[in-house]
Amino acid sequence: MSITNQESGEYQLKDLNLPEDLKKLNFYQCRKLAKEIRSLLVRVISRNGGHLASNLGTVELTMALHRVFESPKDKIIWDVGHQCYTHKILTGRAGQFATIRKENGIAGFPKPEESEHDIFISGHSSTSISVACGIAEAMRMQGDTQHHVIAVIGDGALTGGMAFEGLNNGGKKKMKNLIVILNDNNMSISGNVGAVSGYLRSIRESEEYVRRKQQLEKNLMNTPGVGTHAVRVLKKTKDSFKRVMFQQATMFEQFGFVYLGPVDGHNMQELEEVLRTAKRYDAPVFIHVNTVKGKGYLPAEKNPSLFHGVPKFDIITGNPEVSGNDCYSEIFGKELTEMAAQDKRICAVTAAMTFGTGLQYFQEQFPERFYDVGIAEQHAVTFSAGLAAAGMIPVFAVYSTFLQRAYDQLLHDVAIGKLHVILGIDRAGIVGEDGETHQGTFDVPMLTSIPGAVIYSPACYEELRLCMRRAVREDTGLTAVRYPRGNDKAMTFPKEHLNTEYTFTESGSDMLMISYGRVYQALWEAHCTCEKIGYQTSLLKLTRIFPVMEELVEKALSYRIVMFFEESSGYGGISTIFGSLLAQYGFKGRYVRVSADCFLKQASVPALLEKSELSAHAVCRYIYAYGNKD
Amino acid sequence: MSITNQESGEYQLKDLNLPEDLKKLNFYQCRKLAKEIRSLLVRVISRNGGHLASNLGTVELTMALHRVFESPKDKIIWDVGHQCYTHKILTGRAGQFATIRKENGIAGFPKPEESEHDIFISGHSSTSISVACGIAEAMRMQGDTQHHVIAVIGDGALTGGMAFEGLNNGGKKKMKNLIVILNDNNMSISGNVGAVSGYLRSIRESEEYVRRKQQLEKNLMNTPGVGTHAVRVLKKTKDSFKRVMFQQATMFEQFGFVYLGPVDGHNMQELEEVLRTAKRYDAPVFIHVNTVKGKGYLPAEKNPSLFHGVPKFDIITGNPEVSGNDCYSEIFGKELTEMAAQDKRICAVTAAMTFGTGLQYFQEQFPERFYDVGIAEQHAVTFSAGLAAAGMIPVFAVYSTFLQRAYDQLLHDVAIGKLHVILGIDRAGIVGEDGETHQGTFDVPMLTSIPGAVIYSPACYEELRLCMRRAVREDTGLTAVRYPRGNDKAMTFPKEHLNTEYTFTESGSDMLMISYGRVYQALWEAHCTCEKIGYQTSLLKLTRIFPVMEELVEKALSYRIVMFFEESSGYGGISTIFGSLLAQYGFKGRYVRVSADCFLKQASVPALLEKSELSAHAVCRYIYAYGNKD
Repeated sequence: MSITNQESGEYQLKDLNLPEDLKKLNFYQCRKLAKEIRSLLVRVISRNGGHLASNLGTVELTMALHRVFESPKDKIIWDVGHQCYTHKILTGRAGQFATIRKENGIAGFPKPEESEHDIFISGHSSTSISVACGIAEAMRMQGDTQHHVIAVIGDGALTGGMAFEGLNNGGKKKMKNLIVILNDNNMSISGNVGAVSGYLRSIRESEEYVRRKQQLEKNLMNTPGVGTHAVRVLKKTKDSFKRVMFQQATMFEQFGFVYLGPVDGHNMQELEEVLRTAKRYDAPVFIHVNTVKGKGYLPAEKNPSLFHGVPKFDIITGNPEVSGNDCYSEIFGKELTEMAAQDKRICAVTAAMTFGTGLQYFQEQFPERFYDVGIAEQHAVTFSAGLAAAGMIPVFAVYSTFLQRAYDQLLHDVAIGKLHVILGIDRAGIVGEDGETHQGTFDVPMLTSIPGAVIYSPACYEELRLCMRRAVREDTGLTAVRYPRGNDKAMTFPKEHLNTEYTFTESGSDMLMISYGRVYQALWEAHCTCEKIGYQTSLLKLTRIFPVMEELVEKALSYRIVMFFEESSGYGGISTIFGSLLAQYGFKGRYVRVSADCFLKQASVPALLEKSELSAHAVCRYIYAYGNKD
Repeated sequence: MSITNQESGEYQLKDLNLPEDLKKLNFYQCRKLAKEIRSLLVRVISRNGGHLASNLGTVELTMALHRVFESPKDKIIWDVGHQCYTHKILTGRAGQFATIRKENGIAGFPKPEESEHDIFISGHSSTSISVACGIAEAMRMQGDTQHHVIAVIGDGALTGGMAFEGLNNGGKKKMKNLIVILNDNNMSISGNVGAVSGYLRSIRESEEYVRRKQQLEKNLMNTPGVGTHAVRVLKKTKDSFKRVMFQQATMFEQFGFVYLGPVDGHNMQELEEVLRTAKRYDAPVFIHVNTVKGKGYLPAEKNPSLFHGVPKFDIITGNPEVSGNDCYSEIFGKELTEMAAQDKRICAVTAAMTFGTGLQYFQEQFPERFYDVGIAEQHAVTFSAGLAAAGMIPVFAVYSTFLQRAYDQLLHDVAIGKLHVILGIDRAGIVGEDGETHQGTFDVPMLTSIPGAVIYSPACYEELRLCMRRAVREDTGLTAVRYPRGNDKAMTFPKEHLNTEYTFTESGSDMLMISYGRVYQALWEAHCTCEKIGYQTSLLKLTRIFPVMEELVEKALSYRIVMFFEESSGYGGISTIFGSLLAQYGFKGRYVRVSADCFLKQASVPALLEKSELSAHAVCRYIYAYGNKD
């Protein structure tokens, strides 16, 4: 486009050649564009689901970044990546934006294969400063002294210890091309926690400082022989007093960064000014930007937690299309609260996912035994280990994918000491639209590598309750109960199959099918379908999936075909262990292992189950292929 | 004992009923005892090997803790646990101290099963504050308002992000019974790194503060109309000026702690005073203690890095009995340095283990491409990912056991993006005397759960070099080269077996034995021994162990017996995957899997290999049991 051609001075996204044209707009035009972007965000996310509140909060910041810097030569790293929607819109993907989070559409997180402007994949929190340090050093070694690496990190992500490791190293190396922008919306995902949060608030509000300074001035003024002159002197002696007062003020400076801010993250002029200033420093710079989560869409501004990650919703009312009240997380949260009423030793721990994991009921009833530790899974696990070591019964509710952060803590701090820590692993198995970075398909291989771990994988609400009771009341040591995203509506297998151990359904056939959790339903459906047309199958439903019960391996030996279906990536899943045990026990038949040994891209859960051959249809195909018709 | 009975006023360890009697000693007697403890430490560690420098540095601190607090009602958490030797001596284990780190002896780390004074297992760094938070909260909930939880954390351990997660949560909750003691020896393991380190030094030296304060006073003095009076006023107005000047001074206060210190960690009076002060606060307290690593033993004071973790050494000269110059780490470090001379993209990264991983040569030659990031494995991996994303070739050298800290970073930050990050996994496999917390037996299951990972496990120096070249020059994506502690002296298998893929040695027998790395030697020896008495075996030596090559599974199908020997704990090892593939391919024979699926307690490497049935002897027994004599 040619900006000057437009009479009205207002431009629509579709007219712009982005990101280049962005720099040609004046501030008035920018404000108009911001409005259009917000409207696009709300429209698309209300249809596709996704991260709304954080993206509404970073529209101006993203625009300012692309106006002041030259992406992709200057490199912008988003932390967490779900705040990259405006960035995608501004870097040539406005036209595809309606496909976000859809199968074959653009991703809800930065993805280098999608655009040269997406520098690094970031679905998990607190990684940006480390990534930026790496790229900054690479640029230095490659002789690029012109460009910058900019890590944009939320105040929630800053509570992850990894962010501090990054700050410590970036500050130490005095990386000249490193800029860290704190996107401070005082929210994390649902209300920020921890001392850092309080500290940020105090800088933000600055009241304490102002109060103390005023108090000092007053004291001096009221002292005989010291008057306004002394106060003026105090104000002027920048090299001593002010340095003492202000330069030591932020911990970010203590880490070796130049600290700029706080600035209003919705004021383009202020933002651009601070970014230009940052470019001029010959040192790592930390910019503190205040933003409002949900900015510009009232329902999200009022309730940013609810609009953090949302399913489809109604734009006018802001109400989600599907009630979130009926899901595994809810059942988990309510059951745990009930158990806690009977046992005062039970504590609940979450890493910034109170609502996501259904712990709001527990928090309400037992605030003294409830802990939201921020985005700090490592601390969550070891804190739980500390509670357990002192005789409490901690339950850490966590999404499968985020538990990966605490592998060493599970192994070293919990398992070696045989401490009774219970994990409520939510979003276990295929998760869907969030794609590779969020699939819950690694918790099983991760846990089976830990000696002494026990894993339950219930297949419906009632079984979840049974497993939780057993895990809390009967087990000792590291015990995990894992359950999928969503509800158990699709489960139609007979009630008699409910168990916390296993259920063997023998049909006299020579074909045995094994699974656990949600996938068992596919086996049951396939079993029923194929039975009608003369294919008999026996079924083994596991609930306590690990350690693998060797009696079951012995039972399986008599079959000609044993097929194991499992929602798991990589090796170390139950099907691999079961297969190895079959070989060790001298199995003479054929073993078929169906599992998704790869990173699963974004798509709906049913689509991914189908793709991974874990649907009822796919199971039927296996039965036809390997079975003998009566 | 009865203290007053002793004429000389000097008491020996053996006369004391510890820890109770400790409180009855005067400071003179304490100094004498400290001397005796140091002498015991040097004597035993020179014989057994172990952590010397850090223990010499904490003798007075440990004594002061046990005099001021009442262990085990007050709970002391050591971080890292290897500084607990004096604590063990003072809590009833002086008599067993000579057995430290020996099979069936006392452990080199705190171990609750050994003593009620050992609160928590801690072989890995930066866990103490999280543990202490958990115990502190448990005590609060259980109504114990009398006692404290004390986390003693080194300045090196403080660079781990997890420590910050702990501070953030401890400070936020205002835990009244929590005391964090920073044991600041300015060392980490080999020279501390990072901004935090510099910051600590600045507090320690306090020059900056004093300078600025003096400058301010001078400026005021030199201003007409403002005189000494104003300065006096400034000094007096504690509630405003001093608060501004000092209370905001340390980041630990910004985290919500009361900050006390720094104090001299070798002055018992000063130490006890600050500990008593800490007890009186109704808030979490952070005490900054300065200690000298290696204190009291000249060779260790002079070279604390060398005496961090040591093998046996000569007390008089301080020289190690076995030269450390010939080991896998050395070969790795030298080879990498050589490769880096030819390729400017190669960078080396370590997490506070420059010497341990043999990277000192690289550091010397290419300081601009060398990164010691502190005890921060998470940052190390993601920083490497950043380097790789920008076209460099990063090699992160790390002990197997510490790599566990970065599981999510390997998976999420490296593998999903298919970034070419190379891991040099040192101390892979059984490690020996450090016990359960340090065995390198989890890297294989951890990595096999990550889609796309490639793992090499060379069996001798020459193979290590070959694998490194291939990993750096030919592979793409996440690539690991793992090698054991120690040297390759025991390797006697034929040179022709060297390979970066696999070597098949067929003998026409119906028995196939498979292994990789160091354990292959046991197979080779057993093969030779048994051949002499008429047992034939075929051998499969793997070097590129993952992904498992399916052609090898096919080859194995024709054998009656397939035996896989592997140094690995938990499932997900190569033997499990190989076993499952055998079953999937329709293997009709018998599969025998020998691996240590448990936490291995402290003992020598040969003893643990024997115990795990991975010695040549054990392999022979398997051959006798399953083989057919000619």
